Amino acid sequence: MVQIRHDALRATFAAILERRGMAPEAARACAALFADATRDGVVTHGVNRFPVFVSQIDAGDIRVDAVPVLVHALPAFEQWDGQFGPGPLNAVRAMDRAIELARAGGVGCVALRNTNHWMRGGAYGLQAAAANCIGICWTNALAAMPAWGARDGRLGTNPFVMAMPGEPPVLVDMSMSQYSYGKLQEHRLKGEKLAVPGGYDRDGELSDDPAAIEATRRVLPIGYWKGAAMSTILDMMAAVLSGGNSVADIDAKFTRETGVSQVFLAFALDRISPDGAWAGTVARIKAFILESEAIVPGSGPRMPGARSQAVRAGNDRDGIRVDDGIWAQVLAL
Amino acid sequence: MVQIRHDALRATFAAILERRGMAPEAARACAALFADATRDGVVTHGVNRFPVFVSQIDAGDIRVDAVPVLVHALPAFEQWDGQFGPGPLNAVRAMDRAIELARAGGVGCVALRNTNHWMRGGAYGLQAAAANCIGICWTNALAAMPAWGARDGRLGTNPFVMAMPGEPPVLVDMSMSQYSYGKLQEHRLKGEKLAVPGGYDRDGELSDDPAAIEATRRVLPIGYWKGAAMSTILDMMAAVLSGGNSVADIDAKFTRETGVSQVFLAFALDRISPDGAWAGTVARIKAFILESEAIVPGSGPRMPGARSQAVRAGNDRDGIRVDDGIWAQVLAL
Repeated sequence: MVQIRHDALRATFAAILERRGMAPEAARACAALFADATRDGVVTHGVNRFPVFVSQIDAGDIRVDAVPVLVHALPAFEQWDGQFGPGPLNAVRAMDRAIELARAGGVGCVALRNTNHWMRGGAYGLQAAAANCIGICWTNALAAMPAWGARDGRLGTNPFVMAMPGEPPVLVDMSMSQYSYGKLQEHRLKGEKLAVPGGYDRDGELSDDPAAIEATRRVLPIGYWKGAAMSTILDMMAAVLSGGNSVADIDAKFTRETGVSQVFLAFALDRISPDGAWAGTVARIKAFILESEAIVPGSGPRMPGARSQAVRAGNDRDGIRVDDGIWAQVLAL
Repeated sequence: MVQIRHDALRATFAAILERRGMAPEAARACAALFADATRDGVVTHGVNRFPVFVSQIDAGDIRVDAVPVLVHALPAFEQWDGQFGPGPLNAVRAMDRAIELARAGGVGCVALRNTNHWMRGGAYGLQAAAANCIGICWTNALAAMPAWGARDGRLGTNPFVMAMPGEPPVLVDMSMSQYSYGKLQEHRLKGEKLAVPGGYDRDGELSDDPAAIEATRRVLPIGYWKGAAMSTILDMMAAVLSGGNSVADIDAKFTRETGVSQVFLAFALDRISPDGAWAGTVARIKAFILESEAIVPGSGPRMPGARSQAVRAGNDRDGIRVDDGIWAQVLAL
């Protein structure tokens, strides 16, 4: 492990993206998203993913200089075409526009088609929260999870994000699979079992062995049939609202994940709760939950997002620990 | 079991509600929602729940003649106060208004406070779908599920509903607990184990024994910590957007579940996808998933909502089977 400061990480990413032809301002913004995800402990969509992102630029899946184009506008809803540009930058623009629509109408929605993987979806929830908006967003993805009762992957893990403003904000960023493939790999490399069953082994039994699940690729949806159902309809909504590709379309058209569809919703609390009463409501909910009787004393419930906030504080203090092999890969880009 | 036709069920419910002082038109609409839920197999929020609903009218929790009042209007978002009226009727009005807003702006949102249990949440998703809108809605509830790491119930099961138009529509109607208390009771009465673990027993072990879970009241959130997190933020959003009660507030103010907060979102496909291309997108997704390799041949994936559609077809043909004891209770009201 090497220890790297957030600003050094960001500068390294930005220089690499500029060398790939990304405009300086865009490169800085994109680099910041990768560095922020890493600092918050979401390494699977931060530094560990950065080499894959650059390889997708090199392969032409991601067009570094493309910007989204408005294709259909209604008073509170807009459709944008992401032009196969960088997923994180497209997502920031889409949420920005949803926030503008919400400030005008209370709620605003942007649906985005032909975009690329947004990396850490939680970033766009936090973006809405920083603008005093509730944010909801989701994406579809390459087929990687079986439907309920099926053996082969025909659903996306389709992460679903919800964020509530506050100091700190509350953030839920959840994939429809109990564990992502990145998390399975992380546990396998550490020689750890999963905390709860994460999929099926080759005998069709639920398993907590990450390698056994990676072998079948039968990852478990959250809540069994419920997560499979939610993944299905999130995909339908993303493709229909954006006029873009579904998981089925992505599977038919592309060999790697690209051309995905996303939805961004914002609710402007400055308009909806102009006296600021919402903050007291959130505070009462937090207090009620945090005063629960803990099963393990001293280790009771936390607010969603609290763990990544604690990781961030530690990383800001000590520098961010990055795997040597990954860092060598990054520096060679 | 007695066999009862849908129209007889509805007429029985309507007569009872009229005797409780509900206006004839409102009584017919409310009775239809209870009869429809029963016909679709959602008996826990249909006939089996009807005596509880009437007892809440008799106790004054539900005011039979109250109608929602608009408290705050923005171009695409409105806050309504449900005045403690009948939950199903308030919910229908709220989704109707969300649909109107969506027809004007593409997306529309109504947040409703001081309402009562909406019974089958899926009904309002299907209502949106029948109006050619994508519908999303959720409710908070009385505290009945522990936060992750906690022993005592401080989260609502907060059902979350998503519906996509079509013939038939796709409907996801899911509580944040793996099983509702109604489902636990249903399995216990039949002497059945649960298909998957549904909560914790008194030794703190995951269990598929419904009675052991009913004893601890430690029901399991879907996806473990993920469903607990989602329940938390759904409650925050419902209370903040409606300016109404959170689960914590309901717990502090009331002894029974009343004064809940709900959110209704509609997306008008006639405006968003005016050429009707959305229907082809949904059809491709359905085909892709239904062509999965089934684990048990002949018993592969189904579309979300397909089971209740099959139940409905059978009940329309044969009459609806109702538990004798429940039916006797209803007739005595």
